[in-house]
Amino acid sequence: MDIAAESLRLHEQWQGKLNTVPKMDIKTREDLALAYTPGVAEPCRKIADNPADAYKYTMKANTVAVVSDGSAVLGLGNIGPLAAMPVMEGKCALFKAFGGVNAVPLCLDTQDVDEIAETVKRLAPSFGGINLEDISAPRCFEIERRLIDELDIPVFHDDQHGTAIVVLSGVINALRLTGKKKEACRVVVNGAGSAGIAIAKLLLDYGFKNLLLCDRCGIISSTSEGINDAQRAMLATTNLNDEKGGLADAMRGADIFVGVSAPGIVSAEMVQSMNEDAILFAMANPTPEIFPDVARAAGARVVGTGRSDFPNQINNVVAFPGIFKGALEARATRITKEMKLAAAEALAALVSDEELCEDFIMPEPFDPRAVEVVAAAVANAVE
Amino acid sequence: MDIAAESLRLHEQWQGKLNTVPKMDIKTREDLALAYTPGVAEPCRKIADNPADAYKYTMKANTVAVVSDGSAVLGLGNIGPLAAMPVMEGKCALFKAFGGVNAVPLCLDTQDVDEIAETVKRLAPSFGGINLEDISAPRCFEIERRLIDELDIPVFHDDQHGTAIVVLSGVINALRLTGKKKEACRVVVNGAGSAGIAIAKLLLDYGFKNLLLCDRCGIISSTSEGINDAQRAMLATTNLNDEKGGLADAMRGADIFVGVSAPGIVSAEMVQSMNEDAILFAMANPTPEIFPDVARAAGARVVGTGRSDFPNQINNVVAFPGIFKGALEARATRITKEMKLAAAEALAALVSDEELCEDFIMPEPFDPRAVEVVAAAVANAVE
Repeated sequence: MDIAAESLRLHEQWQGKLNTVPKMDIKTREDLALAYTPGVAEPCRKIADNPADAYKYTMKANTVAVVSDGSAVLGLGNIGPLAAMPVMEGKCALFKAFGGVNAVPLCLDTQDVDEIAETVKRLAPSFGGINLEDISAPRCFEIERRLIDELDIPVFHDDQHGTAIVVLSGVINALRLTGKKKEACRVVVNGAGSAGIAIAKLLLDYGFKNLLLCDRCGIISSTSEGINDAQRAMLATTNLNDEKGGLADAMRGADIFVGVSAPGIVSAEMVQSMNEDAILFAMANPTPEIFPDVARAAGARVVGTGRSDFPNQINNVVAFPGIFKGALEARATRITKEMKLAAAEALAALVSDEELCEDFIMPEPFDPRAVEVVAAAVANAVE
Repeated sequence: MDIAAESLRLHEQWQGKLNTVPKMDIKTREDLALAYTPGVAEPCRKIADNPADAYKYTMKANTVAVVSDGSAVLGLGNIGPLAAMPVMEGKCALFKAFGGVNAVPLCLDTQDVDEIAETVKRLAPSFGGINLEDISAPRCFEIERRLIDELDIPVFHDDQHGTAIVVLSGVINALRLTGKKKEACRVVVNGAGSAGIAIAKLLLDYGFKNLLLCDRCGIISSTSEGINDAQRAMLATTNLNDEKGGLADAMRGADIFVGVSAPGIVSAEMVQSMNEDAILFAMANPTPEIFPDVARAAGARVVGTGRSDFPNQINNVVAFPGIFKGALEARATRITKEMKLAAAEALAALVSDEELCEDFIMPEPFDPRAVEVVAAAVANAVE
């Protein structure tokens, strides 16, 4: 099947991937009086008296906004808000299909940090959570930080934290399989955009100590030029020996490579230079940093990619529906580090000791248990 | 039944009146590849190349935002955005139930005119139309004007224009019944907020010449004090003889009274002072300006109210779903005067000559033909 052509045909047939559907019939005067005027005045009064009642009587309890400015959409780049709609609608469809969470796609006609932040703040009364999506770095960091500070509902940039959670769950299982100790591992994260930085942070939060962050110029160090504030700030916790060099230098002796970078930039030689039982997550899409067969032949033990046609697919869909489901159910006001770590551990634990092997370190994207264990782990981690 | 108590119980059971529901199953890897990545990239590319394709491939084609700031909600007043949510969800449910139009409730955490206008503009890529709701006058005029000027999708403040369309349809049928000529009628509109001003404007657009607009201080004239710019601007087309006086003075010799004002302020004596075959629409809710039995006893021929328990209910629900359905289907960029007049005439024509009588001048709120004839009339009126 030609996926692109068939998807286009279906999109034209669907003409939008979501419907908004009332939960009740409105067929009689009485229906109208109960769902609308005059009956609706009563829940309005209750909420006016006690704002927390919005969670009792309105969609806020179980609805997230999927917000994008269309600045960094899939591999398509800055295609703008209108062209980003199919992706955001798809994301919303996944929220409902996997997590039972209502979701509304909102593509904003601005790419200004201040304007995006203030717009989302003004929209907050209608939503129980905000999923930021496909907003380019480093703007996404500032937008998310401000919204987390100023809103009392969870705000979560999935490209950062959803990816980081799923990568960490894979890493946890790769450690189980190889017996490597996190404190002793040399970790290389290649790609220092929103996903790379979030992955590095969560790996450090989990307990890794020795982590090098690389961009297209190589290892980010005290002498790197042209790096942004977010990248520079990572020097406080990464590359503690202030190593210099290219990706090949970084990978020499590494235990774990995580790529959110560019097709084909990891060579067999680089893999050969890694430590024994090397672990690689090569997530460039659709062409990974190195193909699994090449990496395995060069000595890698565990290889994951973003693709569904290879083993160990790293797919956010096992995480984000459960993250919001759990956060909404627990009425969490933010998504904390503890909630992310708990989600990653819960996902990893879905793979039993019997199942765990080089070709099976991640739960399947369609594993129906994923949303439940993630939601429970997140809800339990709420302070 | 205690409507308030039962409505509250149901609202707690519903916990939000809408679901967002995917139009497709997402149960297999192939489903995911077609509705989301990688297939979704293809409609994104098409829209990036040709923005008009958003109507072909996304929800924009058939989705409106129901936007409020919670400043003038039902009879409850300025209860704020959170407490306005049950009303906006109800409105969205009606859009779908009556018109098949998807609708998303967006209650904004600002009551500043500039901020509301700029927020809605930034949201426009995701929507095919904007229904403004329960925003207080005179702010609503400025917000609507700016959005109409600056957006290329229809923007419609239902409290103004939906009400005006339904009132005009009733007036058209009352003229049919009584044989009065619009050019010769003296019309009093009492209440000079958003609905009153919009009603007055649409009646003038329809061809009435002699119209007095009154507020709580009486007839608005050149010497009225404390009136706002929107009210003052109405003096160019209303009260052309610059009459002064109270409501009783206005009603003496009037043919038509339209009240969007306050309970019980029209007396039997005032009705007695009206012209023969007087027509009254007493729409204060829930207690009308005068009860129908009292008005009829005082000589009125046709009386309508906002209530479902009297004949001739004036209810926006016969208009707004069809207005947007027609505008979206015709890809209208705005709702023009011609579209509003066509909608009112189409609604009036639903009442046949055989049906037309003092107690039946309006189509029933649940008349399934209403949305179809309004949508067709609106679409036909697109230039």
